[in-house]
Amino acid sequence: MKNDYRPVDALASPRFCGIKTFMRLPYVTDLTDVDAAIVGIPFDTATTYRTGARFGPAAIRDMSATIRPFNIDMNINSFEHMNVVDMGDMNIIPGYIEDTYKIIEDQCFKVLEAGAVPICLGGDHSVTLGELRAAAKKHGPLAFVHFDSHTDTVSSYFGKDYCHGTPFYHAIKEGLIDTKHSIQVGMRGNLYEPNGFQDSEDLGLEVITAKEMHKIGIEATAERIMKRVDGKKAFLTFDIDFVDPAYAPGTGTIEIGGFSSYETMELLCGVKDLDVKAFDLVEVAPMYDPAQITAFLAANIVHDFIAMVARKRAD
Amino acid sequence: MKNDYRPVDALASPRFCGIKTFMRLPYVTDLTDVDAAIVGIPFDTATTYRTGARFGPAAIRDMSATIRPFNIDMNINSFEHMNVVDMGDMNIIPGYIEDTYKIIEDQCFKVLEAGAVPICLGGDHSVTLGELRAAAKKHGPLAFVHFDSHTDTVSSYFGKDYCHGTPFYHAIKEGLIDTKHSIQVGMRGNLYEPNGFQDSEDLGLEVITAKEMHKIGIEATAERIMKRVDGKKAFLTFDIDFVDPAYAPGTGTIEIGGFSSYETMELLCGVKDLDVKAFDLVEVAPMYDPAQITAFLAANIVHDFIAMVARKRAD
Amino acid sequence: MKNDYRPVDALASPRFCGIKTFMRLPYVTDLTDVDAAIVGIPFDTATTYRTGARFGPAAIRDMSATIRPFNIDMNINSFEHMNVVDMGDMNIIPGYIEDTYKIIEDQCFKVLEAGAVPICLGGDHSVTLGELRAAAKKHGPLAFVHFDSHTDTVSSYFGKDYCHGTPFYHAIKEGLIDTKHSIQVGMRGNLYEPNGFQDSEDLGLEVITAKEMHKIGIEATAERIMKRVDGKKAFLTFDIDFVDPAYAPGTGTIEIGGFSSYETMELLCGVKDLDVKAFDLVEVAPMYDPAQITAFLAANIVHDFIAMVARKRAD
Amino acid sequence: MKNDYRPVDALASPRFCGIKTFMRLPYVTDLTDVDAAIVGIPFDTATTYRTGARFGPAAIRDMSATIRPFNIDMNINSFEHMNVVDMGDMNIIPGYIEDTYKIIEDQCFKVLEAGAVPICLGGDHSVTLGELRAAAKKHGPLAFVHFDSHTDTVSSYFGKDYCHGTPFYHAIKEGLIDTKHSIQVGMRGNLYEPNGFQDSEDLGLEVITAKEMHKIGIEATAERIMKRVDGKKAFLTFDIDFVDPAYAPGTGTIEIGGFSSYETMELLCGVKDLDVKAFDLVEVAPMYDPAQITAFLAANIVHDFIAMVARKRAD
Amino acid sequence: MKNDYRPVDALASPRFCGIKTFMRLPYVTDLTDVDAAIVGIPFDTATTYRTGARFGPAAIRDMSATIRPFNIDMNINSFEHMNVVDMGDMNIIPGYIEDTYKIIEDQCFKVLEAGAVPICLGGDHSVTLGELRAAAKKHGPLAFVHFDSHTDTVSSYFGKDYCHGTPFYHAIKEGLIDTKHSIQVGMRGNLYEPNGFQDSEDLGLEVITAKEMHKIGIEATAERIMKRVDGKKAFLTFDIDFVDPAYAPGTGTIEIGGFSSYETMELLCGVKDLDVKAFDLVEVAPMYDPAQITAFLAANIVHDFIAMVARKRAD
Amino acid sequence: MKNDYRPVDALASPRFCGIKTFMRLPYVTDLTDVDAAIVGIPFDTATTYRTGARFGPAAIRDMSATIRPFNIDMNINSFEHMNVVDMGDMNIIPGYIEDTYKIIEDQCFKVLEAGAVPICLGGDHSVTLGELRAAAKKHGPLAFVHFDSHTDTVSSYFGKDYCHGTPFYHAIKEGLIDTKHSIQVGMRGNLYEPNGFQDSEDLGLEVITAKEMHKIGIEATAERIMKRVDGKKAFLTFDIDFVDPAYAPGTGTIEIGGFSSYETMELLCGVKDLDVKAFDLVEVAPMYDPAQITAFLAANIVHDFIAMVARKRAD
Repeated sequence: MKNDYRPVDALASPRFCGIKTFMRLPYVTDLTDVDAAIVGIPFDTATTYRTGARFGPAAIRDMSATIRPFNIDMNINSFEHMNVVDMGDMNIIPGYIEDTYKIIEDQCFKVLEAGAVPICLGGDHSVTLGELRAAAKKHGPLAFVHFDSHTDTVSSYFGKDYCHGTPFYHAIKEGLIDTKHSIQVGMRGNLYEPNGFQDSEDLGLEVITAKEMHKIGIEATAERIMKRVDGKKAFLTFDIDFVDPAYAPGTGTIEIGGFSSYETMELLCGVKDLDVKAFDLVEVAPMYDPAQITAFLAANIVHDFIAMVARKRAD
Repeated sequence: MKNDYRPVDALASPRFCGIKTFMRLPYVTDLTDVDAAIVGIPFDTATTYRTGARFGPAAIRDMSATIRPFNIDMNINSFEHMNVVDMGDMNIIPGYIEDTYKIIEDQCFKVLEAGAVPICLGGDHSVTLGELRAAAKKHGPLAFVHFDSHTDTVSSYFGKDYCHGTPFYHAIKEGLIDTKHSIQVGMRGNLYEPNGFQDSEDLGLEVITAKEMHKIGIEATAERIMKRVDGKKAFLTFDIDFVDPAYAPGTGTIEIGGFSSYETMELLCGVKDLDVKAFDLVEVAPMYDPAQITAFLAANIVHDFIAMVARKRAD
Repeated sequence: MKNDYRPVDALASPRFCGIKTFMRLPYVTDLTDVDAAIVGIPFDTATTYRTGARFGPAAIRDMSATIRPFNIDMNINSFEHMNVVDMGDMNIIPGYIEDTYKIIEDQCFKVLEAGAVPICLGGDHSVTLGELRAAAKKHGPLAFVHFDSHTDTVSSYFGKDYCHGTPFYHAIKEGLIDTKHSIQVGMRGNLYEPNGFQDSEDLGLEVITAKEMHKIGIEATAERIMKRVDGKKAFLTFDIDFVDPAYAPGTGTIEIGGFSSYETMELLCGVKDLDVKAFDLVEVAPMYDPAQITAFLAANIVHDFIAMVARKRAD
Repeated sequence: MKNDYRPVDALASPRFCGIKTFMRLPYVTDLTDVDAAIVGIPFDTATTYRTGARFGPAAIRDMSATIRPFNIDMNINSFEHMNVVDMGDMNIIPGYIEDTYKIIEDQCFKVLEAGAVPICLGGDHSVTLGELRAAAKKHGPLAFVHFDSHTDTVSSYFGKDYCHGTPFYHAIKEGLIDTKHSIQVGMRGNLYEPNGFQDSEDLGLEVITAKEMHKIGIEATAERIMKRVDGKKAFLTFDIDFVDPAYAPGTGTIEIGGFSSYETMELLCGVKDLDVKAFDLVEVAPMYDPAQITAFLAANIVHDFIAMVARKRAD
Repeated sequence: MKNDYRPVDALASPRFCGIKTFMRLPYVTDLTDVDAAIVGIPFDTATTYRTGARFGPAAIRDMSATIRPFNIDMNINSFEHMNVVDMGDMNIIPGYIEDTYKIIEDQCFKVLEAGAVPICLGGDHSVTLGELRAAAKKHGPLAFVHFDSHTDTVSSYFGKDYCHGTPFYHAIKEGLIDTKHSIQVGMRGNLYEPNGFQDSEDLGLEVITAKEMHKIGIEATAERIMKRVDGKKAFLTFDIDFVDPAYAPGTGTIEIGGFSSYETMELLCGVKDLDVKAFDLVEVAPMYDPAQITAFLAANIVHDFIAMVARKRAD
Repeated sequence: MKNDYRPVDALASPRFCGIKTFMRLPYVTDLTDVDAAIVGIPFDTATTYRTGARFGPAAIRDMSATIRPFNIDMNINSFEHMNVVDMGDMNIIPGYIEDTYKIIEDQCFKVLEAGAVPICLGGDHSVTLGELRAAAKKHGPLAFVHFDSHTDTVSSYFGKDYCHGTPFYHAIKEGLIDTKHSIQVGMRGNLYEPNGFQDSEDLGLEVITAKEMHKIGIEATAERIMKRVDGKKAFLTFDIDFVDPAYAPGTGTIEIGGFSSYETMELLCGVKDLDVKAFDLVEVAPMYDPAQITAFLAANIVHDFIAMVARKRAD
């Protein structure tokens, strides 16, 4: 293997030094020899409440500098098993959702075609629809594993199809998702309609609400996810508002009653054997994150995503 | 029924649009046909540490815009069963506690006389004494259900009877509360005297400390409350510092060792069958709430209060 | 005159009390008897750097509460001469620029048709194109008086016609502006091209750069504006980034080398005899305004706009 | 002289070290041998808009640590000519204006009786009435030199005599001020009534508005003050909102169109030969001062006050 | 006993009044009759990521003002059993680690020699090495009880022996710690090397990771600590990043997956019978603590330290 | 010329996209064909008050994204005349001043040896001594042009030679500066000693105080600088606290009475013909810069530095 990409060593170079790529990995756009690629999608045009997620990728990169390479929970130093790079950001078009979807789809597909696993940093949750189009083009409909407090399966807002509350309605209608092996986890907050999370269920998804998850615990939740996916190739999307606002205030549409950082990481640990072909982490909005705790948590989640890829590569 | 008041629909009008009433309910001061009335009491003169709660009502209204009308925990869309309005704020007199008490008492009494349930947004906790005077005038002494980290039953501070640490001493001395059916929940923090929460108990109140509540759990706590109130008409006051500062930093006098937003909402759910004749939510101070998570939690608690009224109306 | 709308009196009702309309004016949507109407356009989809101006109208209303009604600079209590109301916000569609333009145009036109002067609160600067379409439909091409640090006359960004950097290129191409009597004031910052502000001049506008304005002074600048407009009916648009970031940090795209609040108000005073048929104040982004000084300055500028209308009404 | 009080030397002890007294002067309550005494009055009960000035004294002390002892503008190291101490704060009674006035009057009088010049740190501007009562008891009516953006000569708010908008109406009615030698400087903002600053003039005060001061310049303003005072013993009160919000955002009731820190210090330099018997600096509210620039400016103003005392002592 | 030092009574003097010593205890540097002495070490030169802990002691003192003297968890009013004072800060030398170590050692040793228990407020965690040198000189190697998310047992960073990641490696190599009775609790985060916490174990320490502690619970953790220490005299160091960032955002190097404030206080309660000869609380960085919740939690932890001393004195 | 380095075009790629190098210039460490090199020195160990300048380079890079390439004041698009790159940061050693000086000296010398002009981003002002050592090794003693509010010519602090208050004392003693052609501009604040700025003058420097500069104006100040330097090769160092805190709050040691952003840029324009061989911009501390106005001003100053190099190259 010609290339050998590693994070900068914080014992030699202080963590606050250097150009801010994810974990100070090399900034590389040629994907030869690359196994996983971090790529930012700084798009927040589809946001229905507090904008600002366009600065999410930069915030996550900033705080990722303090992460050390050996991932205890996943029991692996991912970077010894594969090459990970930071490709920078996609040049999305602020103000234009459908044009941006095309850009996201094309860029993601290139990463997938190069044999690398894309790990996208949002941006608002609308961006996932573009990624799903690319993933389905490459792999066919994937099992969809969705951590969030909102289902994002409304059909339209304000008479318009596309916003960050609608992507999965459209993904399902477009046939991008293997609904029978798909699941939404962490759902909570009040609703527009009395029928609970029936909309998602009508679309064919399994739903584990936050309330149920609080009752059954992390381990049982992880088992339910693993069972639902049932070994299929998966797409994993993580909206940071899955986490409680105390642990992740820096996002556009907070919901109380969420999960702690410990519970979040335990849950990811519980699904570490998923075979994920594409990841994203969305909705970090740094202007609501005065102590940067949200961005740091997000960076740790991305570090777990990298480990999930590495575990497959290391097999 | 002539009037039919509803929140603005967030699927048609973006949540950040419009004049900031609670949940974008109509701003109405004529209480004809009104079942529950939100009213702000922006008074922080009686604060002994960090002032700022005079901006609490505005902060809660701001963040209430993101709440959807169907309350899952309470299993009701309150607005389909009754009329709720936002009456705006009382014109209290900053700097003058006793004059303000008179204003609060008069305004609350008008709401009660009109047959509506007042849901007051503080302001510091001193305001509750004014509300209790109105409630007792209307209903006689009510069962008093008090969520807080402090008992607020000190007799005086700095040689003065009235401040936000003393309202319930005076309420009891004035005979406004049916102490035998009254309870304080969440008490913690260090004390002036070694006798624990004896002061409150000497006044006839039951006390569940935070420590005890952490040990026995939410469900048992809710049962203790229901048993104590025993079906009596109640007054419910909620000081946001009941919640842990991680979940509710935006308040004047924080105490560590509190409860999460999930535990808080579960507890409210557990007492949802209380017959509450007047509510308040106090001590939100937005200058200590940089990501607005406190105001949003407070808005959700108020949404639960509305649901508690609606459940009675829907019976 | 049936209606008589006044701000709430701060000597009777504390400034922090009440529902947050502009200067606590009545919230009224029926424009009968209304001379000037405040209306929010909380749209920031067309922003090319820091989003957040969707919260601008709310922030300006919040801080407007401290303004007293007699405007010394303009020597008038506007509210004794005419009716001013706050109409709330337009229900724009976040994420959709052209649909929103239609909404803005329609809403503005209704205000103009009702005989009231619209005073719009942005939102990013893209919204002005919608307003100009309405104004031209009502009045024909108006003299255009533009305070800003940027010309906003680029033809397109990212291959797209509409964003907050392009509205006046399109306004001129659409024939909405009487360019011969139009002027841009305060221009500064570095440029994409070496030809200075030739683009604007090629489009027929007069330009006074910040540098020139610093040299010639406020009075001469005001005279240049008055001379350019030459008594024609005008449209006045004010981007808060005209002001230096020290005085107005809370905006998306700051430029150093701007003007103080004193210079700004003196300049407005110097053009107080303009016959303005529609105003806007745009680009206030409160998440970059920690001490609310930008919103307060913006509220004062709007107060001057009101006075400019009142002076005409009082003639 | 038994005592010899000096600030801690920042070349030996880092500025961030030690208990936070003003300029790290000794904390001393016995006024023997003391020439000037810093004393905090952390009272904000009389505030009509944004509370928080109760934390003003602590904020000013914090930032005073970086001031070096030789005052260039005043050309003196005050501490070589006299003893200055920090007495700590008065134990005011939050929530109770008139009781607090008595405490302020008594404490100030004690300082004056001990032969020391009190330099009080507010607190809101209401506190000055208490100080003026003490000063008049000791010295008879003093020439009153008032830097502010507001006259604070309204007779009452909300039907009440005392708040931070009324102290000087009452001071004059109580005969505490020698109005013929008194002056208000920096007045601006809009008003309740069209008669400009007639109220203050009717009470016998001279007024220099901000607008006039901007026109005539700092030097002429200083001359007007010196001429008005005409060598009489004076009381000097400085409301930090005299300064423009760009330079002093951290205060409750900002007004645009104010003065820079340079202009402020030049003006103080221009009146350095006033014979001031008591000073205060009021209305610093640190929760609106995220970078602490207001508190630092306030500390420098207090340093100038000290120098004005020292210049008299050094004569 | 000649001296009798007590905190100021918050029922008589408002909590925001007065010079900011810890709990408004007397500022005393003569240790006659003193049982426990609070002393600040405002040193952050050895920080490897976010600096700012030099302002930690001041922040903790500020928020300590709201603590009442009777400690419920520990069931004692410490101040009735012994004298506690605030000695102010050590005059450390910013920028110079080894010189500062000498100062810390000397100052701590003086406190110990005077028979008082030092309770040091950091500063970054490097300062503990200086304290340990003093403690070992006085008492010989102590049992070392270490609450933190990091082991701080790396041998060097950037080729240098001393920084806040290395103090305990050197303490052990210098023989300052009785490793057989020493324990590290709360360890988490990713690592440089795959061998888990082997480094610490190789040095002879017992380690309880955060993950293990989450599994076994607070009570079992406390028991493990008590068993390890086995009645030996101890040194207790508490890095605030032991606590989860949701509860303690204000520190330099946050780690997710930590403990709540309730769990933290329960754990301290569980080890309240340790015989601790010297304490510290380190790494509070107030610029990352916008609502001051970290500083307040830290102040409560220090209050528990005082109680642990008092319980021994009260025996 | 093989290489051709340009900033990313903001009309094609939104400014918030991409890896954060200065103006989104290429990140390049091979200096072949490079004319000017941006390099960060994230070192704040030598800070005597508020630390945090280690995050200065990252903050300046972040805000530089909004700068357009044609510099109006300097009348040049620098990037059409030469190659500019961002080299990233030097791996300084936090906590170790003298070791870091060696690293700075070596790295700067390499840039100079490669024929490029170093433009260093601090970091605290101590770093300039390392740069001066490199510059003198390459060019001999240079004319020293120093914009600041402090002279930084104290010989030692706390008994130590090196901190950010002492670099120029040592630079002169080491013979690194051609004092006869050197000048300090903007000096203000109070002093330790009564002899004004005699220390600097005794060392052979010319000093223009802020007070003098306010009196004589920008143009005369620029002329004084040009005359003093007299065509000699120069080293230009700019401490952001030269600017008033209203315009540049984000720095460690603010001084009131400084200059506006307009005055600052005019002054740089006035000295644009200096022949500068090395530049730095120091002391940006982003945690005190909530709206990022300081970082943006700093980025503009650096843009002017680039233009000054380009003007020489373009000759």
